[in-house]
Amino acid sequence: MRILILGGDGYLGWPTAMYFSSLGHEVHVVDNYFRRRVHREAGTDSLTPIAADLAARTSAWRDLSGNEIGFTEGDLTEWPVVERLFREFSPETVVHYGEQPSAPWSMIDRAHAVETQTNNVVNTLNVLWAMRDLAPDSHLVKLGTMGEYGTPNIDIEEGFIEVEHNGRSDRLPFPKLPGSLYHCSKVHDSTNIHFACRVWGLRATDLNQGVVYGIETEQTKLDPRLVTRFDYDEVFGTALNRFCTQAVIGHPLTPYGKGGQTRGYLNVVDTLRCVELASMNPAAEGEYRVFNQFTEQFSINELADLVQRAGKAYGLDVEIAHVDNPRVELEEHYYNATHTKLVDLGLKPHLLSETLVESMFSVIERHRDRVLPGSILPRTRWRGTLAEPVPG
Amino acid sequence: MRILILGGDGYLGWPTAMYFSSLGHEVHVVDNYFRRRVHREAGTDSLTPIAADLAARTSAWRDLSGNEIGFTEGDLTEWPVVERLFREFSPETVVHYGEQPSAPWSMIDRAHAVETQTNNVVNTLNVLWAMRDLAPDSHLVKLGTMGEYGTPNIDIEEGFIEVEHNGRSDRLPFPKLPGSLYHCSKVHDSTNIHFACRVWGLRATDLNQGVVYGIETEQTKLDPRLVTRFDYDEVFGTALNRFCTQAVIGHPLTPYGKGGQTRGYLNVVDTLRCVELASMNPAAEGEYRVFNQFTEQFSINELADLVQRAGKAYGLDVEIAHVDNPRVELEEHYYNATHTKLVDLGLKPHLLSETLVESMFSVIERHRDRVLPGSILPRTRWRGTLAEPVPG
Repeated sequence: MRILILGGDGYLGWPTAMYFSSLGHEVHVVDNYFRRRVHREAGTDSLTPIAADLAARTSAWRDLSGNEIGFTEGDLTEWPVVERLFREFSPETVVHYGEQPSAPWSMIDRAHAVETQTNNVVNTLNVLWAMRDLAPDSHLVKLGTMGEYGTPNIDIEEGFIEVEHNGRSDRLPFPKLPGSLYHCSKVHDSTNIHFACRVWGLRATDLNQGVVYGIETEQTKLDPRLVTRFDYDEVFGTALNRFCTQAVIGHPLTPYGKGGQTRGYLNVVDTLRCVELASMNPAAEGEYRVFNQFTEQFSINELADLVQRAGKAYGLDVEIAHVDNPRVELEEHYYNATHTKLVDLGLKPHLLSETLVESMFSVIERHRDRVLPGSILPRTRWRGTLAEPVPG
Repeated sequence: MRILILGGDGYLGWPTAMYFSSLGHEVHVVDNYFRRRVHREAGTDSLTPIAADLAARTSAWRDLSGNEIGFTEGDLTEWPVVERLFREFSPETVVHYGEQPSAPWSMIDRAHAVETQTNNVVNTLNVLWAMRDLAPDSHLVKLGTMGEYGTPNIDIEEGFIEVEHNGRSDRLPFPKLPGSLYHCSKVHDSTNIHFACRVWGLRATDLNQGVVYGIETEQTKLDPRLVTRFDYDEVFGTALNRFCTQAVIGHPLTPYGKGGQTRGYLNVVDTLRCVELASMNPAAEGEYRVFNQFTEQFSINELADLVQRAGKAYGLDVEIAHVDNPRVELEEHYYNATHTKLVDLGLKPHLLSETLVESMFSVIERHRDRVLPGSILPRTRWRGTLAEPVPG
């Protein structure tokens, strides 16, 4: 299958590219190095030292596997880039990771909010028009987020809900309560993609993904030049990554607020498998389907406790010290989200365990000299960004 | 009250400005003349000859009323324009008509879709950030559209719906099924505004307006220099405007498809009153409320029949000839939308009658020599724009 991967230089994009390539698919990746640029400007970096660019990455992959991954360095908000990709590569599947992925980054100030929404909405519109006019039978596998739903007081379904009202009923898009302007941009994408399926007959699967953890996949482990990035800073790092890094450097874990915030989580290797399952079982013509892509729910406090326990077993003395919540969100709430569609297609989850956390410790320890402790605590507040981080 | 009107040169923006000014409010309008530019580029125009620009309009209004309306010619996607407006005028109410308002225009091609969504999303984001940082107590009165809801198979509520699900319940945003990429852009705005109210405590009223008809208000009738625009072309003209114009020039009325498409409608004078009622009864701090702003529901066939009947009374021989539907939409469907909140605040609807249609005929006849018959029939198709209009 010809698979185009948008955002193919990213934490998930690069492992996905190698995974599909290892399975014999024809893979082409595109990236504008957005996250590398933001890190460079902020003076931060991936904890794991990643290869210099897509030329180095794909060349290393060729050496190791004998397989070719094509690549384009370009910005998907520019139509000529998208048009050329579709004309020259003729994708059968378009895996779309190519967006600004950070909630805190979108909340820094007005300019960051506008750039987030413009980037994410325009590049997805470009992809939809390219599919309509250049590849109408291709299948879009779009990475959405569980964060589009927010924390409603009812069970979260997979994209749609049967609503009974005044004696009538309809299956309608599940209502959304996004928690940042980044999450809003993903809701905008969902609205546009659903429209394109209804009106143009496109095929799309929206993978509303939980928080991904884990550093290694079968392919990243083959060679140091193939490792994927690991972000632990306040902008791109997620809670589990930050906690594991704090544990290793001897800093207390810093849950935001009360720590009852509950979300769905999954291992990076399950992300690859989910994207494969969606790609190999494409949506029908005109179908917009949504899969909730996570394997387990945890509260922030449960994650902190797990890291503390795993630290003890590993020989680390881990403390927990809650900090003021820089976000505006419910810290205690109901949360129960359906996630059966990917299991029905064959997903066998890799669940989060102390062993997995310990393996993260060992990767972090290997790169301990690269940790910038000042980048972990939050500075971006949902109600106005601070000059200094929130004390912790 | 200090009222800032975004899009104050438009069909509704200009009459709203005069209306508030006549009531003694301090009014400032801003516009980038987007619609005038699009008309100029297409070789089309308002049927009614409108004054040259905001300088001419506000100067005529000063002559007639003795009241000052301030104005700014500028683009709301440019932050310095928005920042300066908020710093210098300090609005208490922000009436937001300042968007690309045409569904067909958004569907012409990729570039028009991207411009529509970028323009509408970015200018609304700019307004929200300006409110947050420069006018946190001000009240946003945003013009949304009933078209955000589409045509679900259940009753449409005003913005939110109580959802019962698996033994639990929550009041959640009403699910949206927008019918064009323009309508999608309004859904994006609603998502962003709701977020800003929840997270920043802003006050907002989203007026999900039906299709507005009518040419005259108390103020536009005072002097020819004060008239508002009347669009009857396929891009900016709505069905009733197009039908009335066709009746006057002796062209058959051209419902799209079967004509069972049902929507909410209201008179332009009711729009002004609704905006006034929302402004004088502002949302609470942190409240995002939605009013469905229309007074009656009609199918396209009912509108065509009404125009035919009114034409007969007026001495016009009116035929009806359905044309292929250029849009992708249900042509027969359930439609029942709640619209009680504005009535509860005091709205006394002006209902659509043969008399009103006849008064529209008489204005159109006065400008009959300005009608461009070739601009009425549809060329923009939801599945791909034609070089020539749909035959009719």
